[in-house]
Amino acid sequence: MKKEEYDGYCYVEGGVCAAIGFSANGLNCGLNPDKSKNDLGMIYSEKLCTAAAVYTQNKVKGAPVLVTKRHLEASGGTAKAVIVNSKNANTCNADGVDIAEEISGFAANALGIHAREVIIASTGVIGQPMSVKPFAEHMQELAVGLSKDGHTEAATAIMTTDTVRKEAAVEFKIADRVCRLGGMAKGSGMINPNMATTLNFITTDVSISVEMLQNALKDSVKTTYNCLCIDGDTSTNDMVSVMANGAAGNPEITADGTAYQSFRLALFIVMSELTKMLAADGEGASKFLECSCAGAPDQRTAVMVAKSVIQSSLVKCLMFGGDANWGRIMCAIGYADAEFDMNKVDVDVSSDAGTIEVCRGNSVILPFSEEKAAMILGEKEITIAVNLNQGEAEAKAWGCDLTYDYVKINGDYRS
Amino acid sequence: MKKEEYDGYCYVEGGVCAAIGFSANGLNCGLNPDKSKNDLGMIYSEKLCTAAAVYTQNKVKGAPVLVTKRHLEASGGTAKAVIVNSKNANTCNADGVDIAEEISGFAANALGIHAREVIIASTGVIGQPMSVKPFAEHMQELAVGLSKDGHTEAATAIMTTDTVRKEAAVEFKIADRVCRLGGMAKGSGMINPNMATTLNFITTDVSISVEMLQNALKDSVKTTYNCLCIDGDTSTNDMVSVMANGAAGNPEITADGTAYQSFRLALFIVMSELTKMLAADGEGASKFLECSCAGAPDQRTAVMVAKSVIQSSLVKCLMFGGDANWGRIMCAIGYADAEFDMNKVDVDVSSDAGTIEVCRGNSVILPFSEEKAAMILGEKEITIAVNLNQGEAEAKAWGCDLTYDYVKINGDYRS
Repeated sequence: MKKEEYDGYCYVEGGVCAAIGFSANGLNCGLNPDKSKNDLGMIYSEKLCTAAAVYTQNKVKGAPVLVTKRHLEASGGTAKAVIVNSKNANTCNADGVDIAEEISGFAANALGIHAREVIIASTGVIGQPMSVKPFAEHMQELAVGLSKDGHTEAATAIMTTDTVRKEAAVEFKIADRVCRLGGMAKGSGMINPNMATTLNFITTDVSISVEMLQNALKDSVKTTYNCLCIDGDTSTNDMVSVMANGAAGNPEITADGTAYQSFRLALFIVMSELTKMLAADGEGASKFLECSCAGAPDQRTAVMVAKSVIQSSLVKCLMFGGDANWGRIMCAIGYADAEFDMNKVDVDVSSDAGTIEVCRGNSVILPFSEEKAAMILGEKEITIAVNLNQGEAEAKAWGCDLTYDYVKINGDYRS
Repeated sequence: MKKEEYDGYCYVEGGVCAAIGFSANGLNCGLNPDKSKNDLGMIYSEKLCTAAAVYTQNKVKGAPVLVTKRHLEASGGTAKAVIVNSKNANTCNADGVDIAEEISGFAANALGIHAREVIIASTGVIGQPMSVKPFAEHMQELAVGLSKDGHTEAATAIMTTDTVRKEAAVEFKIADRVCRLGGMAKGSGMINPNMATTLNFITTDVSISVEMLQNALKDSVKTTYNCLCIDGDTSTNDMVSVMANGAAGNPEITADGTAYQSFRLALFIVMSELTKMLAADGEGASKFLECSCAGAPDQRTAVMVAKSVIQSSLVKCLMFGGDANWGRIMCAIGYADAEFDMNKVDVDVSSDAGTIEVCRGNSVILPFSEEKAAMILGEKEITIAVNLNQGEAEAKAWGCDLTYDYVKINGDYRS
């Protein structure tokens, strides 16, 4: 998948350690019986960070979500570390909150910081009792091993059904100071576009106030993770956090302006690249799908239309099967939860193999070459471009096809 | 699947011909290249009927939907016949409305009635040009062959990916007159719970005003077809129509009261039995799922919770794989679009093999026997019972599991 290019922003290596002053580590603490797979990760900044987070809106919230909220409130939006495990979500357990607090305490002790400076997250099976023992036994080793190269170990520790590690980072300038912002994410099922989705950890050396950091995060989530759909389910443990340690030395961003907009774009770039990686690695996915909606009367409409197409089970099956049943795309646009005139809508389907004009207004599907359609749908990355022709707003949504493997993976997840 | 029993209502044979004065027929007119399969159906009442219908809320509406609306408006809510075809939805075609009008005209001519007395519907592929020729050539034969036994031929004509014919009918009394109400329906993909779903035709010999008929239909749809979810997609051609010819001789129902309530229950029984048949025959389905939600503060909440569980891709996969991953049920309840206290919720999962208590408040999943869970999930009909314990309202939703076959059927639908 090609990365989108932005003037003044350059992709760099390093994930959550790309920013100055951050180190990370990951290891197997025994939650995953396969000892070759990491299941516990840590991110650390010696310098105190301003921190912001957005959480799942599910009424059933994982204990780590509740504890992280509590910590960030108690610390006034500051943090120094992230501790995160896979294989067990620590959700719907009777003693979940106590356990999450205890694990935060282990991390704080190992790092010599306050427990309220720890962001904690878990992902995995819901409703399975979780013992603190593996955490107690491995926390020291995890902290001692923190390094600038540890970002890959940490990114591996949060993988569940992910088949590839997801990391992204950019370098850019604010007031002539070189800044960096990077992140890591995990997918890849139970990702719904209606809120903060999946687990994502972002770090940056930009200096920015808690309030502006939270604003930037809330804004970016709307057009990135919230525009991703794998299967329509919304996890109990979703969380996106950002930590900013100010090591780049720029004047602290405390209000909207050029510096804030530069930061916001960096955040958007990293979050949208991670989002696209999550889509391409959706459970069982064989194809990456992007739906853009332009010409919308407002951004909400653009988002709703793009998501409606990306979420449609029938469109997802069409893409898997390579069957040019365009009516399903028209149908999914038509039931999007938004108000617009369907008879002005243009639709194109394209890939590296070419473009087919599906519709040019009047809700009529145009004649097309089956041969060309088969070639276009035979590619691994397919774009559906919708133009409502009734405004200036636009948005994109990302997803993947629905395959036998999705059913297989989710018919037997726990074992 | 067991039918639910109601005092004073008795299930009878005959589908759309169970009511006095209705006849039907179905044949292959050539839309389906497999000549052994019917693709064109007709229902007829010599006596003029009051008629009501509800339609898809998709912005892309099939031409037959637009034409039926126009006819019922022109006739003041009366009708004498239904003409319906499968294999082609006559949607997103440039000349779709003209073609639907022309076909209505053929039916009217063959029956010696007005075109505005014809309800027309189509189901099948969207965006495929439709010729009137097969309709012109077979309409006379279709009309001549109308009979009391023709309900099976008609019910067969509307099947698309359905594997079984769906018919239901009941006999009951209003003011000491024996009345009948029956119907036929088609599934089985692209069925979303947010509106009138799929194609359904109901006939009755009850005498009832247009207004009360429309009220009863709108009401019943909310708790029957609208509580069905196969794949979350909403068709462009959905329609439910009811025709009442008054042949039972009861005093015309013109207001709420005992007679209206008896009629309304008959409508609910037939529509909910058809809904359950649609769920059990969902595309690729291997299991029938029912989710009941009791103890809700209001009916909307009950409906939203029951639907949220039935719609979850991950719950559907769990049922297919027989994997007791109860967290997914808790998760789906938690993201239902309604306000309630999650910590009061009880959840049970049961089948003919027994019941497991999944949760008793506090969002904690209780310990359970894996062996017993495997036995329960091994059955073909599974019930998830949710009790919110915060009110008196209740509702049910129906669906099916998500299987390899769903993906297979929809990866290559047109061919």
